[in-house]
Amino acid sequence: MKFDADGESVAVRSGMSRLSSPAAGRSATDGAGSALPLAVKAGLGSGESFWQTKTAAGFPAATLTDGPHGLRAQTDLAEGVGFAESVQATCFPPAAALAQTWDATLVERVAAAIGDEARALGVGVVLGPGVNIKRDPRCGRNFEYYSEDPLLSGTLGSAWVRGVQSRGVGASVKHFAANNAETDRMRSDSLVEPRALREIYLRSFERVVTESRPWTVMCSYNKINGVYASENRWLLSDVLRGEWGFAGAVVSDWGAVADRVAAVRAGLDLTMPGGDPTQDDDVVAAVESGVLDPAVLDDSVGRILDLLARAADTAEPGGPVNLDAHHMLAREAASRAVTLLKNDLAVLPLRRDARLAVIGTLAVQPRYQGGGSSRVNAARLDIPLDEIRARTTAEVVYTPGYGDDSPLDEAVVAAAVADVAVVFLGLPDGDDAEGADRTHIDLPADQLDVLRAVTAVQSRTVAVLSHGGVVRLEEVDRLAAAVVDGALLGQGAGAAIADVLFGVVNPSGRLAETVPLRLADAPSFLNFPGEHGRVLYGEGIFVGYRGYDARAVEVTYPFGHGLSYTTFSYDDVQVHLDGDTVVVEVEVSNTGARDGRDVVQLYAAKHGSVIARAPRELRGFTVVDIPSGGTRRAVIRVPRREFAYWDDRVDNWVVEGGAYTLSVGASSRDIRVTTIIRLDGDLPVLGVTAASTIAEALAHPVVGPRLVTMFQQYAPAGVGDGPAGTDALRMIASIPLNRLRLFGLDPDALDDLLRP
Amino acid sequence: MKFDADGESVAVRSGMSRLSSPAAGRSATDGAGSALPLAVKAGLGSGESFWQTKTAAGFPAATLTDGPHGLRAQTDLAEGVGFAESVQATCFPPAAALAQTWDATLVERVAAAIGDEARALGVGVVLGPGVNIKRDPRCGRNFEYYSEDPLLSGTLGSAWVRGVQSRGVGASVKHFAANNAETDRMRSDSLVEPRALREIYLRSFERVVTESRPWTVMCSYNKINGVYASENRWLLSDVLRGEWGFAGAVVSDWGAVADRVAAVRAGLDLTMPGGDPTQDDDVVAAVESGVLDPAVLDDSVGRILDLLARAADTAEPGGPVNLDAHHMLAREAASRAVTLLKNDLAVLPLRRDARLAVIGTLAVQPRYQGGGSSRVNAARLDIPLDEIRARTTAEVVYTPGYGDDSPLDEAVVAAAVADVAVVFLGLPDGDDAEGADRTHIDLPADQLDVLRAVTAVQSRTVAVLSHGGVVRLEEVDRLAAAVVDGALLGQGAGAAIADVLFGVVNPSGRLAETVPLRLADAPSFLNFPGEHGRVLYGEGIFVGYRGYDARAVEVTYPFGHGLSYTTFSYDDVQVHLDGDTVVVEVEVSNTGARDGRDVVQLYAAKHGSVIARAPRELRGFTVVDIPSGGTRRAVIRVPRREFAYWDDRVDNWVVEGGAYTLSVGASSRDIRVTTIIRLDGDLPVLGVTAASTIAEALAHPVVGPRLVTMFQQYAPAGVGDGPAGTDALRMIASIPLNRLRLFGLDPDALDDLLRP
Repeated sequence: MKFDADGESVAVRSGMSRLSSPAAGRSATDGAGSALPLAVKAGLGSGESFWQTKTAAGFPAATLTDGPHGLRAQTDLAEGVGFAESVQATCFPPAAALAQTWDATLVERVAAAIGDEARALGVGVVLGPGVNIKRDPRCGRNFEYYSEDPLLSGTLGSAWVRGVQSRGVGASVKHFAANNAETDRMRSDSLVEPRALREIYLRSFERVVTESRPWTVMCSYNKINGVYASENRWLLSDVLRGEWGFAGAVVSDWGAVADRVAAVRAGLDLTMPGGDPTQDDDVVAAVESGVLDPAVLDDSVGRILDLLARAADTAEPGGPVNLDAHHMLAREAASRAVTLLKNDLAVLPLRRDARLAVIGTLAVQPRYQGGGSSRVNAARLDIPLDEIRARTTAEVVYTPGYGDDSPLDEAVVAAAVADVAVVFLGLPDGDDAEGADRTHIDLPADQLDVLRAVTAVQSRTVAVLSHGGVVRLEEVDRLAAAVVDGALLGQGAGAAIADVLFGVVNPSGRLAETVPLRLADAPSFLNFPGEHGRVLYGEGIFVGYRGYDARAVEVTYPFGHGLSYTTFSYDDVQVHLDGDTVVVEVEVSNTGARDGRDVVQLYAAKHGSVIARAPRELRGFTVVDIPSGGTRRAVIRVPRREFAYWDDRVDNWVVEGGAYTLSVGASSRDIRVTTIIRLDGDLPVLGVTAASTIAEALAHPVVGPRLVTMFQQYAPAGVGDGPAGTDALRMIASIPLNRLRLFGLDPDALDDLLRP
Repeated sequence: MKFDADGESVAVRSGMSRLSSPAAGRSATDGAGSALPLAVKAGLGSGESFWQTKTAAGFPAATLTDGPHGLRAQTDLAEGVGFAESVQATCFPPAAALAQTWDATLVERVAAAIGDEARALGVGVVLGPGVNIKRDPRCGRNFEYYSEDPLLSGTLGSAWVRGVQSRGVGASVKHFAANNAETDRMRSDSLVEPRALREIYLRSFERVVTESRPWTVMCSYNKINGVYASENRWLLSDVLRGEWGFAGAVVSDWGAVADRVAAVRAGLDLTMPGGDPTQDDDVVAAVESGVLDPAVLDDSVGRILDLLARAADTAEPGGPVNLDAHHMLAREAASRAVTLLKNDLAVLPLRRDARLAVIGTLAVQPRYQGGGSSRVNAARLDIPLDEIRARTTAEVVYTPGYGDDSPLDEAVVAAAVADVAVVFLGLPDGDDAEGADRTHIDLPADQLDVLRAVTAVQSRTVAVLSHGGVVRLEEVDRLAAAVVDGALLGQGAGAAIADVLFGVVNPSGRLAETVPLRLADAPSFLNFPGEHGRVLYGEGIFVGYRGYDARAVEVTYPFGHGLSYTTFSYDDVQVHLDGDTVVVEVEVSNTGARDGRDVVQLYAAKHGSVIARAPRELRGFTVVDIPSGGTRRAVIRVPRREFAYWDDRVDNWVVEGGAYTLSVGASSRDIRVTTIIRLDGDLPVLGVTAASTIAEALAHPVVGPRLVTMFQQYAPAGVGDGPAGTDALRMIASIPLNRLRLFGLDPDALDDLLRP
């Protein structure tokens, strides 16, 4: 199989045609599937080894490999549980950092490079992106996820899929769905209300699936409202394939399938890894006994064969990979991810002749990724201290500050005599890792001791942070003159941090997750990580900034926050409708002395809404590069559908009609300019039925007057006459019409009332 | 039927004997029930009129009447929807105020007086107490409920039932269950997790039912986890009768029954009111068609006949009622309910010769109860201004302050020239009413304007509050030197307030509900009142102070807070076990110059618990009167069972073993002395099964070592060897044993592992 002129394989095309017409189209491989012997069909649904599918219909086995931010391709693909040595690959910034770029184009470039490395290693599917929502700061795997916001998560995840798949390698969007904690992850039941599930937790997946058509989706370990994701027909078939038109294969997370027959029936295609051949036998027996519809299995086999056909081209390792070029890209992405949280006294950027005290072990042993299946054997690694030394003409004194044998006074003396102290702080490695959640969000106490001691003698102190999950920064923000958030930056961390410190790069990162004053302020605080295998998503849609804003809780740094070495102003905001798309335009001016990049954020609010809403929600964003003194017109297009909420009464998206406030800001709490747009609603006019209340009936143009007339005869203590101390109408307003029989209403009168 | 020497009727006894042996005992009336014609049996399950049952088996009809804090017996019992004029009765303090006494003995006396008034009016069942938990400050009916805490609610509700039933009149504990909002109350579905349901929402009912054996329980309007309370077999039969041994009748709230057959099947006995005879026909048809088991109907009829037998004695109105004596009791209860929230500058008690400016319409038109079905036509009414004037020798200037034609400067001038200003503030009548919830908790803006103006000229200002639901007091607390919480005090409000202001009564009220700094801090804030007929109880067990404490949120006044004109100290706390009861003793000394009453509160905490818990929970309390300079030994007995949590894995109460911190305090946030007790746990040792995780198996004394041995052969990448950056054991710890097959484990090996 060869790429044709459009760079798209025939197999891919057949999949695409099915997508555009899921009911009608059958791909070229479907016939091959149904012709196979039953045992072969059943066997195709499980891996041949830990990281590979079986071969079938002339297609080679496909290799699936970890790696949202770089390849973790094991040297021995068949090896045991699978944490053996992996081959060297570029370690790009993990998703938590990459998200701080807010830059879909950059994410796409990074993913394309990962795709190239996959091709070189013979990998057909890269297991990423992770677009789960950061529901709680303690989730151990948050470093692998983008954001607390579904638009940002979905947009960047979508770009990632485009990038990888542009190289003829498949993506596997994970972990589908409502997998937002590591605690008891293989049994835990995520109890989520429909609206929160749709607007927050499924929304990022929906965007990636419908926009970028990933080859595969990976189902998660957990249950969703009582049913394992791997066995969840509603999730895998009704929503994913039926509503979203997904035509690819659903792959299990490794070990996620408890009941293979239930999984196949639900729409799961490939169970990984392939350690249990009795599960294949179960599928054979289920078909033979009539428990499993053979057509369901055939459909699944067709999808697996489609996947093998798509991946066939990747089976032969090879192709050019320039690890040096990828390192430069890793640096670029890292430097764009660095987020300047505070910069008092104009401490930053550093002068090249400033005498520096660099303090903290993390300056020489950087933390740049998390632990677990995403761990990359990095091909290169920039050391922050080396990179700082390479950019300065003055003396740089390094002292470890904390850790074993690190005398605090050495750090204090170094800081005191320097022009600026740069203190590296961060979470220990184990705090950002798959398999366990944190129980707090604090930086290590000994590191804070160092910061306190250093800032006591040096007012010009810069704190540089390394962490995957959010850390409490209230004290850091209070003590340090400048705070540079390095998140986990991948192998280019050292250069990226140095470039930002010295102003080689003007920082443009923006937080993708709120930094709360205290963990206890987190909306999910009381419901994480659940107990006894149950996690109630009690905060509903009020996740992240939606929750902090709805309660008006003070935060240390809001969602979307990030400073620059220049300043931007916003003017002349305009809005118009282009068909069904809301187009917002705003003049952004660089009012400072340096060229810079701004992330323009658009938030929407519906005041006086008929439903509970967050005070504002991100509805669009764009990145603009503006030279010093220049002005650019930022344009953000928002399809009307983005304004919809999920209405559980009609099980559909509904746009509420009326005025929406559109705010352009530098963060969710730094709104600069505002405008209004009126949208026509498609709120379904729910008819009055016997189950409607008196209040609802009175509000209806036809039934209302009839009811008033009826009450004049029936007279339930006189509607409108208040009984002592209350309003009679209010007392009875919530009575459903069909209950009025209990109060003596003739049932015929109700029929009269509701006649067409 | 006559009372025998023990003051207990034969019918009551038969009911009691059934209670003590629910399976075996049949009451004397049961035989009569099954002998009745089917149509009569069906008809007995609905009211004859709005407030009366049918007659049967020689028993007169029973009259049921509103009234947790006094009788609302309508002059015409059969009248329409039922908000006509009611006969005069004593209006005692509504539950919200009565709860502030924390005094079960006083509550019992009040309820006995209500029972006397019921007898005098021929009322057989008084529709109270309301022991629903105050989940959210906005619930319009909170004024009818006791507390945010289930122990306080249940203890006082239990006392109320004892009091009423001591007079041969039945109680109807309501609204069963999880009815914590008025919005859409007849359709709304309360979605509550098992632990919150048991520990918070059902707990107060459980206490009342098991301690005081009410004649009836009233089911609520709402659904609970998808099923109407009226049709909820789990609630009405499995829990109420099966677990709690309830032998009385379940009565519907008025209009709560949508499907009568489903209701009878669920265990509901009496549908009120009796407006729809077709429902009786439905029951007949269901029995005849075999849809409804006739034995179920017979059991229900037996319970209704029991009720009629118990109530027969009340059918003839009469008996002595001394409304003047009841007014004195209403005053006493009211004065004990008044809660002194702040008293700076020793403003209170007022000197009898102090020149007073009394400001605010509420001083002459007091608010003393809420609106809706509980509204009493008060037999007497004390006016605060009159009562103040009656207790002073100096000039009292009154000015309305706010409202129509109330010049603000008149109030300012009066305040400026007085020694002390007393400003009456409160919610408008409609804000505390059945049928609607509030949308905010603010006092009216014009009242706060008055307080600001007055306090600007008069530092010695006392704010007196009238309100049913909690109001925001942050500004009142900041401006006024003293704050006197009058809640809604019933017809003795005026005298009670005046008695406390002048120190005739030394205040001893304690808050039964937290006063938050802001509504947005309320644990249920984001989940109230729900939408589209669904209310997610997302805060779980963290209701009221449990939630404020768990998040360490600052409040204006904590649960349990209340000052005195004297001071108390706590010493020598002791704890010991008396069988299965924890006995806490503490020396309480009155260290001030006045005799006083203290409410000693006992809170318990389990640190390092295996489950999520509030930092402290009320586990006992007692009221002690102590003369100035005196000391009393307060003894609080807490059955071990009170320390249990609800374990949804075993569907039962479980006491966790280990150390509990017992704290005695003057409020939930004013802990004075602390001790520790160790309790043996009955935490079930959950055996290791195939569904257990690796971590759980490793922790098991027998299975653990086997698993280690197995891993030495099977070697999943070496348990304990960390793959780069993580801990292999942590990565695999959450894998259930039965999933290891997917990773290549021989199923036989699992059997070996788990062999007995």
